[in-house]
Amino acid sequence: MTRLKIKDILKDGKAGSEVVAKGWVRTKRGSKNVNFIALNDGSTINNLQIVVDVESFDETLLRDINTGAAISVKGELVESAGSGQKIELNAKELVLLGGADPDKYPIQPKKHSLEFLRENAHLRFRTNTFSAVFRIRHAMAFAIHKYFNEKGFNYLHTPIITASDAEGAGQMFRVSTLDPKNPPLTEDGQIDFSQDFFGKATNLTVSGQLEGELGALALGEIYTFGPTFRAENSNTTRHLAEFWMIEPEMAFYDLKDNMDLAEDFLKSCIKYALENCMEDLKFLAERLKQEEKGKPEDQRSMDLIEKLEFVLNNDFIRITYTEAIDILRNSKPFKKKKFQFPVDWGTDLQSEHERYLVEKHFKCPVILTDYPKDIKAFYMKQNNDGKTVGAMDVLFPGIGEIIGGSQREENLEKLETRMKEMDIPAEEMDWYLDTRRFGSVEHSGFGLGFERFILFVTGMGNIRDVIAFPRTPKNAEF
Amino acid sequence: MTRLKIKDILKDGKAGSEVVAKGWVRTKRGSKNVNFIALNDGSTINNLQIVVDVESFDETLLRDINTGAAISVKGELVESAGSGQKIELNAKELVLLGGADPDKYPIQPKKHSLEFLRENAHLRFRTNTFSAVFRIRHAMAFAIHKYFNEKGFNYLHTPIITASDAEGAGQMFRVSTLDPKNPPLTEDGQIDFSQDFFGKATNLTVSGQLEGELGALALGEIYTFGPTFRAENSNTTRHLAEFWMIEPEMAFYDLKDNMDLAEDFLKSCIKYALENCMEDLKFLAERLKQEEKGKPEDQRSMDLIEKLEFVLNNDFIRITYTEAIDILRNSKPFKKKKFQFPVDWGTDLQSEHERYLVEKHFKCPVILTDYPKDIKAFYMKQNNDGKTVGAMDVLFPGIGEIIGGSQREENLEKLETRMKEMDIPAEEMDWYLDTRRFGSVEHSGFGLGFERFILFVTGMGNIRDVIAFPRTPKNAEF
Repeated sequence: MTRLKIKDILKDGKAGSEVVAKGWVRTKRGSKNVNFIALNDGSTINNLQIVVDVESFDETLLRDINTGAAISVKGELVESAGSGQKIELNAKELVLLGGADPDKYPIQPKKHSLEFLRENAHLRFRTNTFSAVFRIRHAMAFAIHKYFNEKGFNYLHTPIITASDAEGAGQMFRVSTLDPKNPPLTEDGQIDFSQDFFGKATNLTVSGQLEGELGALALGEIYTFGPTFRAENSNTTRHLAEFWMIEPEMAFYDLKDNMDLAEDFLKSCIKYALENCMEDLKFLAERLKQEEKGKPEDQRSMDLIEKLEFVLNNDFIRITYTEAIDILRNSKPFKKKKFQFPVDWGTDLQSEHERYLVEKHFKCPVILTDYPKDIKAFYMKQNNDGKTVGAMDVLFPGIGEIIGGSQREENLEKLETRMKEMDIPAEEMDWYLDTRRFGSVEHSGFGLGFERFILFVTGMGNIRDVIAFPRTPKNAEF
Repeated sequence: MTRLKIKDILKDGKAGSEVVAKGWVRTKRGSKNVNFIALNDGSTINNLQIVVDVESFDETLLRDINTGAAISVKGELVESAGSGQKIELNAKELVLLGGADPDKYPIQPKKHSLEFLRENAHLRFRTNTFSAVFRIRHAMAFAIHKYFNEKGFNYLHTPIITASDAEGAGQMFRVSTLDPKNPPLTEDGQIDFSQDFFGKATNLTVSGQLEGELGALALGEIYTFGPTFRAENSNTTRHLAEFWMIEPEMAFYDLKDNMDLAEDFLKSCIKYALENCMEDLKFLAERLKQEEKGKPEDQRSMDLIEKLEFVLNNDFIRITYTEAIDILRNSKPFKKKKFQFPVDWGTDLQSEHERYLVEKHFKCPVILTDYPKDIKAFYMKQNNDGKTVGAMDVLFPGIGEIIGGSQREENLEKLETRMKEMDIPAEEMDWYLDTRRFGSVEHSGFGLGFERFILFVTGMGNIRDVIAFPRTPKNAEF
């Protein structure tokens, strides 16, 4: 008899039919005569209730069926008398597949702190919270691929190991096979990277954008979805040393097309979550509510599902950086000197400013455009004012910047001039400049940090809780 | 007026309608009075023919419209008089978006060698061959996600940077932020990795399997799809230092379930290619035919599309390693001492043996199972004979091993014993062994090398031609 998944049993199971279910015991409770086992196999947040007539089974077998144990159950589905489920399984055959010593198994049926579960990341998938988070993470990854596939984009795997540090986006991890203790040296005493595996110094990529542009300027529209790396010593709830990014890049798109795509893309993924992950979302919404019970009412988050629906159903506000500066300088917190950082045209906005705009002023996702060129990357499209570039940042409530993008400068001369001004070594980037030499066209793109997006969709508060095995300073466990 | 993609124009365009198309010039030919421009925008292998009445346009403009230039064309669709296309575009407005100096642009309308295009990997997407390859690569990536999503698998991002070298699957790249010239040393003169970014020595992953098992033993069925790395000095047409792997891992699956999944999975992806990529496949089939024209007939490949249909429509042969050894020892090449490597029970099969089985003996994909335990990894399920393990390798014509997998040993004691025998440091893998301590169940999984699969589907001969920017010894360009 084939095993059925619990998700399918709960959805389609008919009272009277015989089924086999396998899974892990979440809880066992009951009386002298009847045991109730909550069985979960990871296919859904919901458990299948197994009803065990104690008399019919060996005592030691039942004793070993503890939280965390794996069992196989054959039995008959019956309508449930209890609340909380429509159907339950009357056990006829029970097999213990693998026990879980209650004195040793860390994940007991009680509230564990997120810190404790992070230390047990190899087992935290077995909790309701983390199984919900990782099912949603899967669903969002799929929604992203589905979205771009339907739009005719091609998924491009840009390189992870790279010799270029041209973007200057952050500190990088070195990749090497040289003997770390006795590396070969050149005559003048420097490390001889020509003897390294790739014949030169190499690093882990910080972005696939530049290579993505090469693809877009031939295939039209591409996107990347891969790991990126920052060797920054940031121990915050928003930073990882290894994280996944989605970077679409599109030929023939100007800044407005880019904004339209970013907004449509985010809404489409959120719609997918609401249509496909409602049970997990409901669980996480309730979790968040419980988590914030102790907070004063005005500091609590919006209900998770309401928040997602709100983003889905409202146009994002689109304003320029210059307009944002005006709003901020006319704001109460600015006038009352409540902002920690200055608000001056030309300086980058800080998290407190972004949050004011999104959470207080507009109460809505905001797309900020046309930033001062001096705080943005060399490849951004230079506006005619000589001061700003065609950048766009999408700001989300609770998260801040979730997308950063721009139209790209397609004019070779302007790009080379800007690179010179910013000390970017053009000679190492000839391949990149070739796209501006040959058949250059208007094009745009953006980057979405996948984990920050998952934070938003799941309502989790720490980025280490939305990636399976987080990499952070001093931590590369599992 | 919105620009339409050439794919959509060729599919749905009606004679008499006005459209705007943008793209790159593949060729321009014609007479004194009429120019014909083949325009491609990457959305399809097919070009849109632009008909230009020379009199109506500026001479210098037309002179600058060369191969590789980007143009925007507004005009009226008309039925085509020429062969090869149903519809063409009569240009009314022509804009040169970006020129391409014919003296400098490397991709001219003539046959370029694959080696030359590899050196110009940043521009090779603009050729028919490579645009076809990378559209198919996209389609196969999507087919993989679609397949697993529909089966209820969860996509798991296993870590790229890892401190564990337990699997011993190959030489690894070291990841570090220590000063390479003056690394900190411990008192006894060793590199002090406790001062490194992660507080210990770290490498790039060779496989996500072990972490994948953690996910499967909670979520039921997971798959990975991410980059993996081998620091092997292999300069072959089959090896990359950086490549993408798909690794599904499933709780409650035995070896037969694993084989069934692998076969169904491969066939489902091939079916997707035949249903969604036929124009690109036809182009590549013809390319292959041309490529092999010079070869004697018996050394030519099967027609690409016939080959894909053949795999789709035939059951894979399933035999044990022991049976394979018997077949090989009774084969003509063995008796005539044509094999370079020995055929003895207990030694690994070489490519020549695998090819004999697949291409000569069975003429069909083959799944070999139950290999000698001493040539397989520690985690494989130990068979009752004490000699073999529940491994499975899927062998494909022209490619050899395309999938390697096994049932996993779920018994803690057996696993620990085997690890001791093979000198695997159990103390570093406590997290892995926890899955056998707590709720252990029968489970299985396999790995598919994505690029090898793309080689098979596209008929390309060199693995460097199916990944955008190949990483190989002494090469990390772009």
